[in-house]
Order: sequence, then structure tokens, then C-alpha cells
Amino acid sequence: MSDQSNSINLWMTTSRIETLVDGIFAIAMTLLVLSIGIPDISSSLSESAFQQQLWALWPKLFTYALSFFILSGFWRMNHQQFYFIKRSNPALITINVFLLLFIALVPFSTEILGEYGNYFTSNVIFQLNMFFAGVLFYINWQYAVWKGLVDENINEKTITFMKRTNLILPIVSLLALGVSYYVYAWSNLIYLASPVLKKIIEKKYSTI
Amino acid sequence: MSDQSNSINLWMTTSRIETLVDGIFAIAMTLLVLSIGIPDISSSLSESAFQQQLWALWPKLFTYALSFFILSGFWRMNHQQFYFIKRSNPALITINVFLLLFIALVPFSTEILGEYGNYFTSNVIFQLNMFFAGVLFYINWQYAVWKGLVDENINEKTITFMKRTNLILPIVSLLALGVSYYVYAWSNLIYLASPVLKKIIEKKYSTI
Amino acid sequence: MSDQSNSINLWMTTSRIETLVDGIFAIAMTLLVLSIGIPDISSSLSESAFQQQLWALWPKLFTYALSFFILSGFWRMNHQQFYFIKRSNPALITINVFLLLFIALVPFSTEILGEYGNYFTSNVIFQLNMFFAGVLFYINWQYAVWKGLVDENINEKTITFMKRTNLILPIVSLLALGVSYYVYAWSNLIYLASPVLKKIIEKKYSTI
Amino acid sequence: MSDQSNSINLWMTTSRIETLVDGIFAIAMTLLVLSIGIPDISSSLSESAFQQQLWALWPKLFTYALSFFILSGFWRMNHQQFYFIKRSNPALITINVFLLLFIALVPFSTEILGEYGNYFTSNVIFQLNMFFAGVLFYINWQYAVWKGLVDENINEKTITFMKRTNLILPIVSLLALGVSYYVYAWSNLIYLASPVLKKIIEKKYSTI
Repeated sequence: MSDQSNSINLWMTTSRIETLVDGIFAIAMTLLVLSIGIPDISSSLSESAFQQQLWALWPKLFTYALSFFILSGFWRMNHQQFYFIKRSNPALITINVFLLLFIALVPFSTEILGEYGNYFTSNVIFQLNMFFAGVLFYINWQYAVWKGLVDENINEKTITFMKRTNLILPIVSLLALGVSYYVYAWSNLIYLASPVLKKIIEKKYSTI
Repeated sequence: MSDQSNSINLWMTTSRIETLVDGIFAIAMTLLVLSIGIPDISSSLSESAFQQQLWALWPKLFTYALSFFILSGFWRMNHQQFYFIKRSNPALITINVFLLLFIALVPFSTEILGEYGNYFTSNVIFQLNMFFAGVLFYINWQYAVWKGLVDENINEKTITFMKRTNLILPIVSLLALGVSYYVYAWSNLIYLASPVLKKIIEKKYSTI
Repeated sequence: MSDQSNSINLWMTTSRIETLVDGIFAIAMTLLVLSIGIPDISSSLSESAFQQQLWALWPKLFTYALSFFILSGFWRMNHQQFYFIKRSNPALITINVFLLLFIALVPFSTEILGEYGNYFTSNVIFQLNMFFAGVLFYINWQYAVWKGLVDENINEKTITFMKRTNLILPIVSLLALGVSYYVYAWSNLIYLASPVLKKIIEKKYSTI
Repeated sequence: MSDQSNSINLWMTTSRIETLVDGIFAIAMTLLVLSIGIPDISSSLSESAFQQQLWALWPKLFTYALSFFILSGFWRMNHQQFYFIKRSNPALITINVFLLLFIALVPFSTEILGEYGNYFTSNVIFQLNMFFAGVLFYINWQYAVWKGLVDENINEKTITFMKRTNLILPIVSLLALGVSYYVYAWSNLIYLASPVLKKIIEKKYSTI
């Protein structure tokens, strides 16, 4: 507080990070739509032939919706974390920049999965993208707790609760990665379990 | 308020949702412009031949303007709702995420309509996109009223007024869907009636 | 204030419009970069052959910079206006939605001009886009003054000053339109005169 | 403060600039992902042939990450500057508009570098883009100090510290430009030195 180095970092309020985070989330979620793409269809087809061509878009629409929900899950996690994180420092910003790098990458891995979901490699890319984003969220929380950047009035139970819920997405992405070895795109249905898992953890921590 | 589960959800202020909503609306409305696209024209045409090629962009410009106005209508509805909604909860956020999924999808269905408006299926896709977004706005309001998340000082008349106006867009999109069976793209002119309908409802509720 | 209709429109604070406006401006200005595009060049060219190919990007870089500055000019005008506009109403929002429709269209007309600047029609499209945006800014200010939505303490001189400066961009775009009939793309250099014109008007009104 | 010209520029609070800056940074950082692009791969390849095709994306992923980190560095610099800059004026806004022009251009020069990194010219374009952005950041700070737009309580040491750190990025980009003459893309690894340089300067100024 008294030395020069600190006064120079005074600008690093959490609100500044949150603005960048909110912006990048909103844009990444909306850019996902570009991953669907418009098929190049001759305009002289019959109605049913046209429908058949559009039918090919289903896997892309599915991955669009999937990524949208995963990103909204990350966004919730971020807001939950920064509700308790009250101070910032250069290292916390660096963690968040790395995290945003993977968030901004989601439209890319979504397009790979939507376009080439029949390859195992595409599934690996998608799941690793989610896994690294999830792990960085976990690191963000651990670091903030470790460095005492969180609200002083937070109790131990909440800290542990946050740790647990922050582990859901990385674990689910690893599970999806393993299962995708056998069933490819269907493996992503596992993500639908994450809200259920979160509810279970929430219940456990609210009844103890 | 006193149990852990609630304190964990304290971060869910409505302002957080509004930031995401505002961001996604602004981006979706601006991304619409990409649906117009630039025709691939040889640069050695005569001026009139060039104009003829550009002329083919009219349906796309029309659907661009149409979607822009529909999205601005949804945006107004959202701000009207959140002027009264004072608290949030996980389910309300989930409703809004679903809603934003359809808002972010509008540039896609707009491009389908602008490019392949001569197919009935394109009209169905566009109208269903608007219909689901509209229904989710309606559900959002109903849920917020049901769970008591709205301002306590709101009177019954305002609640009913909001319900009515929130029904305009889903109903208009269903009408457009029906009419589009006969006249395709022209059916969208029905949307121009929605501000008139809103005015009528507003007048009714302000004079009683 | 006391009737239902008004209480229903209470949400329409100017801050809500400003958020949407700021978002759409930032996105439109950044999307302009997509209008430049990356040429499709074989990767086995000599260095000088590669440079020659890139050279073809100059007109696009020029129109990118031009549109960026024009949009930043509109953005300044908007903030200047809303510094004085204190209240909002449904019609003001409608004017702003129309205005934003033309702002969001700028990446399209910029790409047309950058790609097909050798056609007179492209210049007409670009100038008309700027002209309509400029006229709507002018209407926005006139309407706000007429309906008493501006700060009560604003003096007559400031109102007239704003009217004058708001006329610069529409007039310049008309001039550019006229000149472009003879010299095409070079006509856009006229826009560089607008800051000078603004300075002159500012000086006049600060010395009287 | 008392003359008309000043009252007309009262809207130019720094918060307005910061909103535009934050928006353009978030969008430019997320648009970078479009520079990666999805390869056009036949869907009937073997898994290993598919992997080989994807392998070609590495230089693009590398330049994506590089530009993301450079932009995040500029973003930090901007927030550090505006923590101390308390007032604004038309010239400061103009400097920032020029600066944003180069920030919004980064997705373009990133795509050039990712796609045609084997040409020296691509490296020149990329490094010059970063250099001009860096120089404008430096000018921004110098101008703000010169015109007394910064916090009155700022001490000389902080001003000099800021000057020094603001020089890191332009100098590093010039170094990268020089080195790229010999080793092309690898030259960009020099950017990884900038956090280290910043740490050194920070340490120096906190121990004196």
C-alpha cells in the first residue's frame, strides 16, 4: 500500500477485469452463431430437397447450443467467483487473460466439432478447450483464496463449496473426452449432467 | 437469506444478467450486417450491369432491417421487464440463457431467410426463431411475477399490461408463419403491425 | 407521470439507450476490419510478387480508416447530444433505433466501397449511408429539444451550436456524393474537412 | 470552464472513452479467433490424415495466442493510464481514436501473419501495427501529462515509471521487426520478454 509498486497497481480493481470478461463472454457466445454457417444451396431445388440440405445443419445447431450453455455455465462461475473476490493483483489478471484466451477460442473449437465431429481428434480439441478453461477457473479461485483477495467475511464452507463446483466442468470435460473415444459427439450429452451435479453439491452444503 | 444455498446465489443480481443481455443484443444486431454479404462481382462490368447485380441484395437488406427492428423490439421488452424485476434466482438466469440462445441465433435465421426466402422452410425457421424468443420473454415475465421477483409496489394493471404486450411478438410471428405459407417473404410485413398493437394496448391500460 | 402509460415507460432512461449505442458503435467500428479481408495468395510467390498482391489492399485500408473516423465522429456527436438529453420517450428510442440501423450498416457499405470503389454506384451507397445516419442524428437533437427532453439549464446558444455541428456530417456526405460523380474515391477526402468545420463553428460560438 | 467552447466539451469525461476502449478491446480480442479459420477438409479422410491437415493450423494458433497477449498488455497499459488521467479534451479523444484504429486492425495483421508468416513483408505489417499502437499509447500519456489532465497528486516518479513501461511495447516491436529479417515468425518470441522488462522497471521504481 505504501510502496510505489503497489500504488502503480491500484488501477487493478476487479471491476475492470469484470468488464473485459463480460465483453469477451458476450461476444464469444454471439460469435458461436457464425460456426453454423449457411449452406451453399442452389435456389432451384424442390422444397423437400432444400429441407434435406438444411437437415445437414443439425450437428452444427447441436454443438452451437451445447457451447452456448457451457459458456453460460462458465459465465455464472465467473460471476460467482468475483462476487467474493474483492481485490486484484497482476497475477490474478494474468490468470484471467489466459482463461479468456480459451473462452475466446470456443467459437473455433465449436466449429471444428460441428464440421468434423465424425473425427475423434475434433472431440479431443473441443474437450481440451473446455478442460483448460475449467482448470483456469479453478486456479483463479484457488489463487484468490490463497492470496487473501476474497471477502474476509467468507466462511470456510463457502470456499469449499466453490472449489467443488469449480471442479464440475473440468471433470465433466475429461469424462466427455474419455467417452468420446467410443461414441464421439454423443459424449457431449454428459455436459447436461453438470447442472444436476451442481444442484447436488449445493444441497449438500446448504443442509450441513 | 440465512441458509448457505442462498448466500451462494447472492451474486445473481439482475444487473449482471442485464450486462450480458445488453452485450448479446448489441452484438447480434451488429452481426446481422454480415448476413447481407458482398456479392462477388467482376470489376470490369458496366455501371448498369453492376447496379443490376447489386439489385439482387434487396431481399437481404429488407430482412436485415426487419430483424434489426424485431431485435430492437425484444430489447425494449427486456428493459421494460427488468425495470420491474428487482431480484434474480438461478431459474431466472436459466430462462434468460435460453432466451439469449435464440437471440444470438437471429443472424443465422436472418441469413437463411435473406438467402433462401423463396423456400417456405426458410420462413418457418425464421418465424420459429422469433416465436421461441418471444415465448421465452413471456415465460420470463410470468416466472418473475409468480416467484415474487418483481417490485412489490407494482400494481395488478401493470402486470397484466406487461403480459399482454409480451404476447404481441409471439402471436405476430405465428401469424407471419401462417401467412408465409401463401405469400412467403411478404408475410413479414405483419411485424410492422406490432408497434400499432402495442400502442392500442398502452392506450387501453392508460385510460381505464 | 401519474397516468399508467407514463409509468410503463419509466424504464426508458437515457442510460439504457447509451449502453446499446456504445455497444453497437464499438462492434461496428471493430467489424470494419473484416471489410479488408485477406487476399488469397499462393504461398510460393517471391517476396516482391507477394508485396504486389498486398498492394491491392490499399483502397480497402483507406476506406477502413475513413469509416473508422466517420464512425468516431458520429460517436462523439452522440455523446455530446446525450450529455444534454436528460429524459427519453418511446419516439426518441425509435429515432435512435433507426440511427443504429444505419450505423450497423456501415461495415457493409464500407466493404462495397473498398471492393468496388471504381463504380459510381458504390460511392452513392456509401455516401447515402452516412447521409441518413447524419440526418437521423440531426432529427434526434431537434426532436429532443422540441419535446423538452434536454437539460433545462441549456442556453439557446448551445442548442444552436449543436444544430450547426450536427449538420456538418450530412452536408459533407452530400458534397462527397456530388464530387464522387467526377472523381470517385478521392471525393471522400472531403470528410477530412469536417473537424476543421467543427473547429470554426466552435470558435464562432465561443467568442460571440 | 466559463467559456462556451469548454461547456460544449464537458461531455468528454474519461469514462466515455473508457467504455469505447473496453468495447473495442474485447471485440478485437475475440475477433482474433476468426483469423484461425477452419480448414476445408474432406470428411472421408483417415484419422491420421485429418490430424495432419489440422497440424497446419499451429502457426495460426500461435499468432492468435501472441496477439491475444499483446492486446491484453495494451489493455493493461490503457487502464493504468486512465487510472491517473482524470480529465479529457478533444485532442486526447482524437489520440485515442487513432490508437483504437490500430487496435481494431490487429485481427487483420494477425491473419496476415498467421496465413503468410513465411513472407518477411507479413512480419513487417504485424510489427508496424503493434509499433504504431504502442507509440500512440506513449503519446497519449505524454500528452495527458503535458496538458495537466492527470491526477494532481501523482508524483514525478510514477510519471517517469509510466513513461518507461509505455516504451516497452514499441521497443519490443521494433526489435522483433529487426530480428524477423533473419528468423521470421520466431522473432515474435521476443514479446515474451516484455512482462520481464516490466517487472524489472517496476522493481527499480519501488526500491529507489
